[in-house]
Amino acid sequence: MKVVILGGAGFIGRKLAEKLTALGELKGREITSLHLVDIVEPLPLEAPFPVTRVALDLAKADNMAQAVPADSGAVYHLAAVVSGQAEAEFDTGMQANLFGTLNVLERCRALAEPPLVVFASSVAVYGGEIPLPIEDWYLLNPQTSYGTQKAIGELLVNDYSRKGFIDGRGLRLPTVTVRPGKPNAAASSFASSIFREPLQGEEAVCPVAPEATMWICSPRAVIANLVHAAEIEAEAWGKNRCLALPGLLASLGEMVEAMRKVAGDEPVSRIRWEPDPTIQKIVANWPADLKPEKALRLGFKADQSFEDNIRYFLEDDIRR
Amino acid sequence: MKVVILGGAGFIGRKLAEKLTALGELKGREITSLHLVDIVEPLPLEAPFPVTRVALDLAKADNMAQAVPADSGAVYHLAAVVSGQAEAEFDTGMQANLFGTLNVLERCRALAEPPLVVFASSVAVYGGEIPLPIEDWYLLNPQTSYGTQKAIGELLVNDYSRKGFIDGRGLRLPTVTVRPGKPNAAASSFASSIFREPLQGEEAVCPVAPEATMWICSPRAVIANLVHAAEIEAEAWGKNRCLALPGLLASLGEMVEAMRKVAGDEPVSRIRWEPDPTIQKIVANWPADLKPEKALRLGFKADQSFEDNIRYFLEDDIRR
Repeated sequence: MKVVILGGAGFIGRKLAEKLTALGELKGREITSLHLVDIVEPLPLEAPFPVTRVALDLAKADNMAQAVPADSGAVYHLAAVVSGQAEAEFDTGMQANLFGTLNVLERCRALAEPPLVVFASSVAVYGGEIPLPIEDWYLLNPQTSYGTQKAIGELLVNDYSRKGFIDGRGLRLPTVTVRPGKPNAAASSFASSIFREPLQGEEAVCPVAPEATMWICSPRAVIANLVHAAEIEAEAWGKNRCLALPGLLASLGEMVEAMRKVAGDEPVSRIRWEPDPTIQKIVANWPADLKPEKALRLGFKADQSFEDNIRYFLEDDIRR
Repeated sequence: MKVVILGGAGFIGRKLAEKLTALGELKGREITSLHLVDIVEPLPLEAPFPVTRVALDLAKADNMAQAVPADSGAVYHLAAVVSGQAEAEFDTGMQANLFGTLNVLERCRALAEPPLVVFASSVAVYGGEIPLPIEDWYLLNPQTSYGTQKAIGELLVNDYSRKGFIDGRGLRLPTVTVRPGKPNAAASSFASSIFREPLQGEEAVCPVAPEATMWICSPRAVIANLVHAAEIEAEAWGKNRCLALPGLLASLGEMVEAMRKVAGDEPVSRIRWEPDPTIQKIVANWPADLKPEKALRLGFKADQSFEDNIRYFLEDDIRR
């Protein structure tokens, strides 16, 4: 089976490609090739099967035959313009996140065999007029354009699946931390940089107060759940193919104390607490308290504690 | 103020145009012209101001300057391919209901002054994995392509309003009955024809059992609520510009008994009960039990009893 990763140059796409290469199979079928797609060319990957890499824009319908080859069996659609950019540049976000997703789904529909499609949604679909904690059947009332575009993607994944055009599954990702790499335009970027930079001897600024809470998970948990999403039988999803992933509800203060337990006082001393009212307001509007019962019932997993997240970062992203 | 009605040839668009003509103002501003748009040319309308009528396809972006003139102050977007057709012809539904709505919103965004936009959504957005009765903060998990496209429209109306591109308001319409005219491709078409036809001496078939329930309202209530939606101050809508309208929860059996009370035994004897498993299954999947608390708080109104609906039909649609 050919597996396609749209967003294959991002850190999740990269880690997923490595994981699938190590596993060698998905949903009981041998992986015979991997096709990595992104707006920039994904890096080379060593694998016991062919790995193709292409740079293209999913917002252009003409690119779709190259993005999703005719013999694709499974498609991970992780590609997106992130929250901060989608808010600042409305049209850029709509093109990538709405029309890009429509193009992907239409291309998948045109294949001879309806492919498995795993869509990365986000807890940014939550907000607005809902009580807490958030149950599985609560309204998606996003308060950002990014969240709006992801919620629309979920509706489309559901309807394309119901019609039999694809076998779709959508996961609302928690804020993933500690993520490797550089800060990006996501409003949540600080939630990784205040650990990643100090753990590597650099200073970092925390723009929210220690009391601010987030719904978080580690890169390892996200990758495991993206694989698990493909493994579940179609029938088990019921009438909603999209769900919130398990995560941890943690305050920034608790997360920093977890880093202290694992890595000592020194990294903690490199965090400067400089509240930024704009970012504080955005984070305060992210409902962090979820009850992801359907996901737990279907076997998706959360991390045990943020100390693990710190350890995973040290093991996976620094020490090798 | 110029008021635009997209879907101006439909029965709701027609009744709304008549109502606005009688009122002469909307949200405290004098109506100076009415612009009626539909896929077929709307019928002439006598009014004390200019009434323009055009036939065009909202799915074509090139048509938008003609659909929504530059000096439009309020836009009612009622145009849609109905549920039965959107399910049978997926691409037709997507073109009209998704891309048509995107075209309307983009055109409204391009106007010098952000216009008031009233969007007709539907209780077809409900279904799937939600408990009953339906609260205002429950998930939109539609089980038809029509419902999916309406739910996407709601998300867009919310985001375009949040960004200040429009001043949007969306109403989830109950099944409107008794509607005048001919049967159409809506799966709910029978819910009017089993009253409309017998009240005019003709036979009609009821394809569901008397126990089947629906969430209903009269044309008069819908028109009053469409006007009211424009009158409410923007701030009162909060973080969700879309809501479920009040309605009546009634079984087909109760509705028929209401017709008997108003019009006697003869019309009732003209209904043939011939259950159709396909339509029964569709109707059984329409959750009919709603708690539209936000709408009631904002002053939207339901009918008092289905007997009124029968009387309104006799007064408004036969006897004049």
